[in-house]
Amino acid sequence: MVVASQSLEELCINSIRFLAIDAVQKANSGHPGLPMGAAPMAFVLWDRFMRYNPKNPHWFNRDRFVLSAGHGCMLQYALLHLMGYDSVTIDDLKQFRQWGSKTPGHPENFETLGVEVTTGPLGQGICNGVGLAAAEAHLAAKFNKPDATLVDHYTYVILGDGCNMEGISGEACSLAGHWGLGKLIALYDDNHISIDGSTDIAFTEDVCARFEAYGWHTLHVENGNTDLEAIARAIETGKSVTDKPTLIKVTTTIGFGSPNKADTAGVHGAALGPDEVKLTRDNLGWTYGEFEVPADALAHCRKAIERGASYQAEWEAQLAQYKTKYASEAAEFERLLSGELPSGWDKDLPNPSPEDKVLATRKHSETCLNALAPNLPELIGGSADLTHSNLTELKCSGNFQKGSYENRNLRFGVREHGMAAICNGIALHGSGLIPYCATFLVFADYLRGALRLSALSQAGVIYVLTHDSIALGEDGPTHQPVETIASLRIIPDLLTFRPADGRECAGAYKVAIASRKRPSALALTRQGVPNLVNSSADAVAKGAYVLNDCDGTPDLILLATGSEVGLCVTAAEKLTSEGKKVRVVSMPCWTLFEEQSDEYKESVLPKAVTKRLSVEAGTTFGWARYVGTAGASIGTDGYGASAPGETIMEKYGFTVDNVVAKANAL
Amino acid sequence: MVVASQSLEELCINSIRFLAIDAVQKANSGHPGLPMGAAPMAFVLWDRFMRYNPKNPHWFNRDRFVLSAGHGCMLQYALLHLMGYDSVTIDDLKQFRQWGSKTPGHPENFETLGVEVTTGPLGQGICNGVGLAAAEAHLAAKFNKPDATLVDHYTYVILGDGCNMEGISGEACSLAGHWGLGKLIALYDDNHISIDGSTDIAFTEDVCARFEAYGWHTLHVENGNTDLEAIARAIETGKSVTDKPTLIKVTTTIGFGSPNKADTAGVHGAALGPDEVKLTRDNLGWTYGEFEVPADALAHCRKAIERGASYQAEWEAQLAQYKTKYASEAAEFERLLSGELPSGWDKDLPNPSPEDKVLATRKHSETCLNALAPNLPELIGGSADLTHSNLTELKCSGNFQKGSYENRNLRFGVREHGMAAICNGIALHGSGLIPYCATFLVFADYLRGALRLSALSQAGVIYVLTHDSIALGEDGPTHQPVETIASLRIIPDLLTFRPADGRECAGAYKVAIASRKRPSALALTRQGVPNLVNSSADAVAKGAYVLNDCDGTPDLILLATGSEVGLCVTAAEKLTSEGKKVRVVSMPCWTLFEEQSDEYKESVLPKAVTKRLSVEAGTTFGWARYVGTAGASIGTDGYGASAPGETIMEKYGFTVDNVVAKANAL
Repeated sequence: MVVASQSLEELCINSIRFLAIDAVQKANSGHPGLPMGAAPMAFVLWDRFMRYNPKNPHWFNRDRFVLSAGHGCMLQYALLHLMGYDSVTIDDLKQFRQWGSKTPGHPENFETLGVEVTTGPLGQGICNGVGLAAAEAHLAAKFNKPDATLVDHYTYVILGDGCNMEGISGEACSLAGHWGLGKLIALYDDNHISIDGSTDIAFTEDVCARFEAYGWHTLHVENGNTDLEAIARAIETGKSVTDKPTLIKVTTTIGFGSPNKADTAGVHGAALGPDEVKLTRDNLGWTYGEFEVPADALAHCRKAIERGASYQAEWEAQLAQYKTKYASEAAEFERLLSGELPSGWDKDLPNPSPEDKVLATRKHSETCLNALAPNLPELIGGSADLTHSNLTELKCSGNFQKGSYENRNLRFGVREHGMAAICNGIALHGSGLIPYCATFLVFADYLRGALRLSALSQAGVIYVLTHDSIALGEDGPTHQPVETIASLRIIPDLLTFRPADGRECAGAYKVAIASRKRPSALALTRQGVPNLVNSSADAVAKGAYVLNDCDGTPDLILLATGSEVGLCVTAAEKLTSEGKKVRVVSMPCWTLFEEQSDEYKESVLPKAVTKRLSVEAGTTFGWARYVGTAGASIGTDGYGASAPGETIMEKYGFTVDNVVAKANAL
Repeated sequence: MVVASQSLEELCINSIRFLAIDAVQKANSGHPGLPMGAAPMAFVLWDRFMRYNPKNPHWFNRDRFVLSAGHGCMLQYALLHLMGYDSVTIDDLKQFRQWGSKTPGHPENFETLGVEVTTGPLGQGICNGVGLAAAEAHLAAKFNKPDATLVDHYTYVILGDGCNMEGISGEACSLAGHWGLGKLIALYDDNHISIDGSTDIAFTEDVCARFEAYGWHTLHVENGNTDLEAIARAIETGKSVTDKPTLIKVTTTIGFGSPNKADTAGVHGAALGPDEVKLTRDNLGWTYGEFEVPADALAHCRKAIERGASYQAEWEAQLAQYKTKYASEAAEFERLLSGELPSGWDKDLPNPSPEDKVLATRKHSETCLNALAPNLPELIGGSADLTHSNLTELKCSGNFQKGSYENRNLRFGVREHGMAAICNGIALHGSGLIPYCATFLVFADYLRGALRLSALSQAGVIYVLTHDSIALGEDGPTHQPVETIASLRIIPDLLTFRPADGRECAGAYKVAIASRKRPSALALTRQGVPNLVNSSADAVAKGAYVLNDCDGTPDLILLATGSEVGLCVTAAEKLTSEGKKVRVVSMPCWTLFEEQSDEYKESVLPKAVTKRLSVEAGTTFGWARYVGTAGASIGTDGYGASAPGETIMEKYGFTVDNVVAKANAL
């Protein structure tokens, strides 16, 4: 094909294509195929529909855009640049995928202003989109008034075949259909090519029919390569359907314009090569140089700056009006957006004492959540169909459902991975919402892909993970975590807590709520544990602390977490009665302990005391760091078993006698 | 409802119900609701359709049954008992969920003969079913002759709402539709109740329409509680459709028969309680005692024994005939079933030397797979759409597709979790097949739920996980594993390998292939690594070994894995030239090293040498075990970055100079 003359829109679209082609070529690394094929739909969306303010990427009421097919990030960087965001200059595009650049290999919200969420691991972005749309629906229901609209934006997602093959997207999209999130519009780049070649080899389902089954509204643009009006009509129609999310299947050609590589897997994830770059320029009639954007195209795109300023001004006028009519709501809205927690948010957190009832830490967690919820309206979340096992219901609110989006109990169904990714979207909506989600600890494995992204992308989601050891009993090894706590501890920037009792549970929530850039995981018992005499909520922030001590230098330190702290306290009493000098250290959060000063660490675990025994109903892997070569560990290095919890704990050596025996053996 | 007189079939169905009710009540733990509702479909299936031999649960050509809704395991235990399996006696039922029993809280293939796969984590079982059906299709295509059928069985699955909500099931079912696995028949227990209550609160999609979109044949039995003929007709119809898998939606009432708890979440996961047990007996006209099975019912069910014997005899006659006509195929078939590897299976594994080219270990892996494949016809597998990145194609075979099931390259699409669970099904088909699957190491997070079940259920799946560190470069932190290798090392009964070069890669495959009860994970580089002078394939079986040594007692031990071993070799040379006595230890598999004798461990890591430095492009978490309190670790305790791999490795301190400096600091 030779393009004799190009319309202004074609110039813009080809500008996107060639910025992507050139950047990938310069880096000799990246994915040109998707930007080349999806440029038309993305341009129509960003030029004709999306409301955003390039000069203020944080403007609250902007439409959210998610590139779920994150490998195609040059599409997004090109758009950000063309539309006038300062975060992506032409030099940044030339530094694509280089050390220290603002244009990394996949979109990262923590690197590039204008990128809403971190994508690349397939399927995550569309789920984040569901979370963003849910956040919008919630805030709209909460703040909008019949005569005043504060919250009113769309969430647009571009996703690919890979996203649609991933199970996580099915989970979140089924839920989005159930919730009826009408302001979620997903454009499916149907280019029928994945890395292994034609999707014919593994993916022949009818995607639109599947989404219809989920309760979505679906549309098909047959020629997504050049039929801009059809794309625009579809988006318009999608916007007009307000009670269902819309999937627009846009059939495109991957690597559109490349004479030899279009419609092949070869253009998916590698630079075109200098020859093919030239041929593509010839083929698309592109006479401009490397990284050159035609002045007309740039001028047209940059109109987004003016549009954006006026969108924001218009909205700020609305906000000003809102303030006069609804002062207290407006104050609350502005507080939320500021990310500031309300004063007294933690005032009702419980402080149970040893005289109080023996309770499971999951029960303390329920108390904490319900002590927080009335004072912390931004707290929103729920469980993957284990509400009454995880004990995560907020009693002061109802269920978030179609028609009751103002409520804060999210019913996720048995969809752990989708749940976590939705919560990432809620956290990254930037509106102060604090999402939490819940399942059994062992099923953290199901949501680990999204949990890692919580940590990487600085989404302060709170994971409530109950039934935290073999002590859960009869459900058996499929449901009993043994390696899971350690598997969470090793995720960078995740705070993993295993509180020992009610006070430590309150302390863990206090840190978790305040930690808006680092997600938290709370491992909680199914079974009851005593409230300990010297436990401390405040000490949780230090990660580990001396719970019980002896006079002078200890002969032995017992280190434990969660349900095994109480066990160690009892064992220490017995050892003390035998004349030993024993210290008990509770270690609810290793990561926070590692962040303390050397002095503090030495005060808790003096180097001179080398006899150390760790006791935790989990793998011993990792404990060597604290017990050292002279120490020992009691743990579970194999799988559990199906039997009553107390029996299992006894069989696996979590008894006072065994702790005392192992301690004496040191 | 009062049942005045019961037909023989009703007696049998109520026997299942009350065995489940009584066992859960006695244990005061478990899930009575599903068995009570699904007993009719399960009974019709096991009584009228399924071919199995209770006295030989291993009989090869049996129909496979998977209870994907594994929490309802009392359904399966009751059936095994009633149908005459010796593995589940009435005493075993009375020991439901007790220490050491054969009737654990979820079905476990390694505990209970007659249970094919381990279920409970929702969604896994249906995917295992896809794997079982794929294994059958493969073997049928391979061995059956126009005049002789050896392999010919169905795979039946009962799954629930929870399984259908999980994304993993969508992944595998989409693929099953694509593959056209006509002998897979899934009965969906549509009881519209999950733990949180009515599925109305989170799951309102049209499941049959979704499966139709996947390419399945679907049917609906509207009254699954009592309409046995409708159930039977549906299964019959399902069997008649041979080019598509069938989903039969069977609408039932959870806890059917319980006057106060039927159709509520209350009957899902808790004992009925003595009063309700009694009321249910009254309601269903059940005059029999606890754990009492009416003689007529038992006699009817036990006809399965005779049927089973004759099914097997019939098949053995076919096998005998087959042997006379197709002796070599028959010999191969019997070898496969025996689980014995063919002689010389490992003879072509490569043994590259330092003079050979610098290659990525993923490339060595490709060489190994293709050296094995022609000699090891049971090797079957593929990648989640990263075939040419993971380098997992078997060049001696084609693609496993509808119409070419004899081929051994499985094209999984971007469906990591489903892939792993399908491989578990293939491994547990019991026909000697050795499945492998592949993705990027970081996406082990996506399939972790199924990987854990590989290990727990003794399914020797081989996981080929490439791009194993920050050195993969430009794709950036979303694609760069940092904590992932450690996260695999901590899974009990999983062998995690990180080979340093071509020889170690061959050694890892040698162990992995021979390890049929323990799965393996191979972490492989994207980038080239040198073949090392003293590396050893055989030593991999010991987990760690002295690669380079000095005279006398070392001053220092450098410990490393994978791509960092070569780095340590070079650093050791420099340190040696400075007059230090340095040992280099390669540790390709920690688990295997831990299994060695104390003498061997001491010979590799002498206690006297406390100056130890570990170097691994991954989290330092866990290395304290080997470097001790006096040692140090070079690793990546935060996330990676997007840049060329060599730049990143340098910035993160994986350089000879830094290793030397850190070593000297010790």
